[in-house]
Amino acid sequence: MLWSGWGDPGRAAPLPEPVVALLRDLLGVRPAGAPPLALADVEVPEPRLAADDLTALARIVGDGHVRADAESRVRHTRGKSTTDLLRIRAGETSDAPDAVVLPGTHDEVLAVLRACAGRRIAVVPFGGGTSVVGGLAPSGVGAFVALDLRRMDAVVSVDEVSRTAVLQPGLLAPAAEAALTERGYTLGHFPQSYEWASIGGFAAARSSGQASAGYGRFDDMVVALTVATPEGTLELGRAPKSAAGPDLRQLVLGSEGAFGVITSVTVRICPVPEAKAYEGWRFASFGEGAAAVRRLAQDGPLPAVLRLSDETETMVGLADPSAIERLAAAGCLAVLGFEGAAERVAERRALAADVLRAAGGEPLGAGPGEKWERGRFDAPYLRDSLLDAGAFAETLETAAFWTDVPALYDAVRGALTGALSGEGTPPLVMCHISHVYPSGASLYFTVVSAQGEDPVGHWARAKRAACEAIVDAGGTISHHHGVGTDHRDWYAREIGPLGAAVLRAVKDRVDPSGILNPGVLIPGLASPPNTEE
Amino acid sequence: MLWSGWGDPGRAAPLPEPVVALLRDLLGVRPAGAPPLALADVEVPEPRLAADDLTALARIVGDGHVRADAESRVRHTRGKSTTDLLRIRAGETSDAPDAVVLPGTHDEVLAVLRACAGRRIAVVPFGGGTSVVGGLAPSGVGAFVALDLRRMDAVVSVDEVSRTAVLQPGLLAPAAEAALTERGYTLGHFPQSYEWASIGGFAAARSSGQASAGYGRFDDMVVALTVATPEGTLELGRAPKSAAGPDLRQLVLGSEGAFGVITSVTVRICPVPEAKAYEGWRFASFGEGAAAVRRLAQDGPLPAVLRLSDETETMVGLADPSAIERLAAAGCLAVLGFEGAAERVAERRALAADVLRAAGGEPLGAGPGEKWERGRFDAPYLRDSLLDAGAFAETLETAAFWTDVPALYDAVRGALTGALSGEGTPPLVMCHISHVYPSGASLYFTVVSAQGEDPVGHWARAKRAACEAIVDAGGTISHHHGVGTDHRDWYAREIGPLGAAVLRAVKDRVDPSGILNPGVLIPGLASPPNTEE
Repeated sequence: MLWSGWGDPGRAAPLPEPVVALLRDLLGVRPAGAPPLALADVEVPEPRLAADDLTALARIVGDGHVRADAESRVRHTRGKSTTDLLRIRAGETSDAPDAVVLPGTHDEVLAVLRACAGRRIAVVPFGGGTSVVGGLAPSGVGAFVALDLRRMDAVVSVDEVSRTAVLQPGLLAPAAEAALTERGYTLGHFPQSYEWASIGGFAAARSSGQASAGYGRFDDMVVALTVATPEGTLELGRAPKSAAGPDLRQLVLGSEGAFGVITSVTVRICPVPEAKAYEGWRFASFGEGAAAVRRLAQDGPLPAVLRLSDETETMVGLADPSAIERLAAAGCLAVLGFEGAAERVAERRALAADVLRAAGGEPLGAGPGEKWERGRFDAPYLRDSLLDAGAFAETLETAAFWTDVPALYDAVRGALTGALSGEGTPPLVMCHISHVYPSGASLYFTVVSAQGEDPVGHWARAKRAACEAIVDAGGTISHHHGVGTDHRDWYAREIGPLGAAVLRAVKDRVDPSGILNPGVLIPGLASPPNTEE
Repeated sequence: MLWSGWGDPGRAAPLPEPVVALLRDLLGVRPAGAPPLALADVEVPEPRLAADDLTALARIVGDGHVRADAESRVRHTRGKSTTDLLRIRAGETSDAPDAVVLPGTHDEVLAVLRACAGRRIAVVPFGGGTSVVGGLAPSGVGAFVALDLRRMDAVVSVDEVSRTAVLQPGLLAPAAEAALTERGYTLGHFPQSYEWASIGGFAAARSSGQASAGYGRFDDMVVALTVATPEGTLELGRAPKSAAGPDLRQLVLGSEGAFGVITSVTVRICPVPEAKAYEGWRFASFGEGAAAVRRLAQDGPLPAVLRLSDETETMVGLADPSAIERLAAAGCLAVLGFEGAAERVAERRALAADVLRAAGGEPLGAGPGEKWERGRFDAPYLRDSLLDAGAFAETLETAAFWTDVPALYDAVRGALTGALSGEGTPPLVMCHISHVYPSGASLYFTVVSAQGEDPVGHWARAKRAACEAIVDAGGTISHHHGVGTDHRDWYAREIGPLGAAVLRAVKDRVDPSGILNPGVLIPGLASPPNTEE
């Protein structure tokens, strides 16, 4: 993973000249000033851990598994939001961890948490490092370690009768998928971060993949969990569903490392689909297209993948930068992907076509669907290229009930456009419906603008405006990115003071020293553990 | 609702003579001794509430809505487990509430909770009163009121775009269904308690209906909730799914009144199905049938209803007492119900038939399916008849991952047979798979035996043996009945000491006086609020 951007550095390509010209003409994008620093030139703050602390941790995980060198610390600094990238490219490492600890077992995680609780060292669980909401950036905290779970990367077992697999948290998604595919199974979980994200992170942050309509969200897939906390272990999940009290799995899912470290995840698995068919449909407007995908979500047949771009996103053809000049009014593109037994795929595709035609859709054939599928993991690379070219690019997302979706769409677009125009960097705001349910859908916004003088500041204000708009319009502050530190204040409004108090009560019980991911997720906690030191 | 049994007294019929003879010959059932008391002859304990308490409560809910008469108290004593019925039939009213309070609004519920917290009066939320796990029988508590929600019985709104409805908690299921059907919708939620159970109870106890394969469990249907607690209100759910932290809805669902009183439930609704087709299939053995229904659960097509009786239950033909003598080896009966658009029903039925035939199934046509559908809510009436005839009849249920299902089945059957035989009342133990998932299934056991000398004591010991067997075999202590007081000790083992501690932390935060349903659900709480008085 590129320390200052996304993924494999070899895969990011400079933007084609026509795109650069368009960005300049349309958004006033100017070439970036100084190029990013080289990794070797990035300085990290003086570490705040005593030698004794490091020795104690090394006694638990083994000598080679506590790292305090600058490169390890830089590589575990924050996540992959655009703000994270802009800051790290500028050499800003104020919230670098003081050390990186790599446990190998559940018991080692438990022991590290106990040692850190005793020593008042904060702990930030670190899987793929792909958070885009500040989930790896503890706030206002003193000494902390990144607890990198990469050594816990096994497929522990596969149960072909129950169709479940026990996975360790540090396993990256492609490795999980490869191991399952060998046995004829798939997780079916393909978020945009797929190539670099971890199983534990998917669970901790309630990831949702591009094929969620077919395979479910990650939180739907999890049937059992093991969690290490400073106060002991939670083992949850004896059946797919239960009436034995509240579903405590659902208290751990989405807990973003603030309640404990997920050390084992049992997920349901599906047979590798025999056939896949991806296709595009055109609708005259986003509203017409939304009504059509709602029909599929409510009455079926539901494809595995179902997405609908708004007019702007359709025009820009985000997945293919070379198409950015195709500015003719293209209506709205929907992408459908069917997966399963060949006969079922054909049947469901025909049934869906009837529904979409009746709703005003025009079939565009396999081309747009297959193009989307080829580029499905490329957008973060494109962001790197845009940053290099002096543009700012970021995404945010929400979800709501269908009735609230149109007003939510207008409110967020309006907020982003208004705020960034006010900053002197008027944006292009694109949106797509990325996940659908019978009762609602998620909206995923992409913003591109010139970087301007202070892109981090511009975005902070625009993002704040968008978050206000989301909460005011009745949406949830995140459908699949999570809360982190970035969304915490709006999350507090979403769940109300008593909801926040409940989370604090749980936190106090499992993490009384408050060492776990301080400042992440939980609204209104008192100051983190070691700020007085 | 019959105070000493189930439902409409007019619908319970004496058992036919051949059945009585069979029960006598097979299980040693002898006519019951004394008939149940008349309601007017049932005495209740001296009320423990002061006049001032009743006045304060009446000031909140209005004069006619606080009831302390004997009949109201008897009608709110415990629930509808067989033990509950045996005790109330004998005039045993030791845990009758001291009064019944009927709030009309969310704000009245809030005010009642605050008043009761201040006065250390425990509160037992009461919907349909159909708990079979001691959910309405607080343990070791002093003065308490039943908070009967029957006045909060409105369909507040129906959103045809989002396909959701906002329902009040005291609404009974048939009234909800009637109101929705008028507009072309259904909840699709038909548990055996359907005719008498409430919306709030479904949510608080994670009910699962007989058509759960098609429409989901009740906890799947709930998209938003409002909860009144002594510490304020929780409003949860802004979208079908969210990555904004833990899913707090899933902390309220299954909380059985211990965290608060659910005052509003937003559920997803479905169009009334155009067609329904119920049918029976025969399998040579429970194992063969289980493999077949697992195929449908994992690879589809999944019917709306999917059940499989074991050999004993199939023989007894529980839904039709007149068939009880048909003791020829009948194999195992599966009932499938398809619902939806006529064309889809036909298609799915044909596809399912292919799967079941390949798995060794023999089609029995519509007859057994339709017979099952006709009698689907009758079993509780049959229980009343059995009790009247001197037999004991009770049910319990669990769920597990598919791999664990065979051993769980053997263990629970063995435990029940062994324990009741040891009591001198050897039972008939029947079982069916009642709900299926891709990764597992629930097992629903029905036990019939002679009442013997002390049926309450016999059953307490047999139930304890069954609960031990469930937990030891890796099952959950309840798939859809809930925890109540009856399952609390095994629930503690299921979630472990840290899980229990988390629940206590939540409880302490929302109900610091511990007035809400004391003794229900939460393991290991200190003594309830007013026991020292």
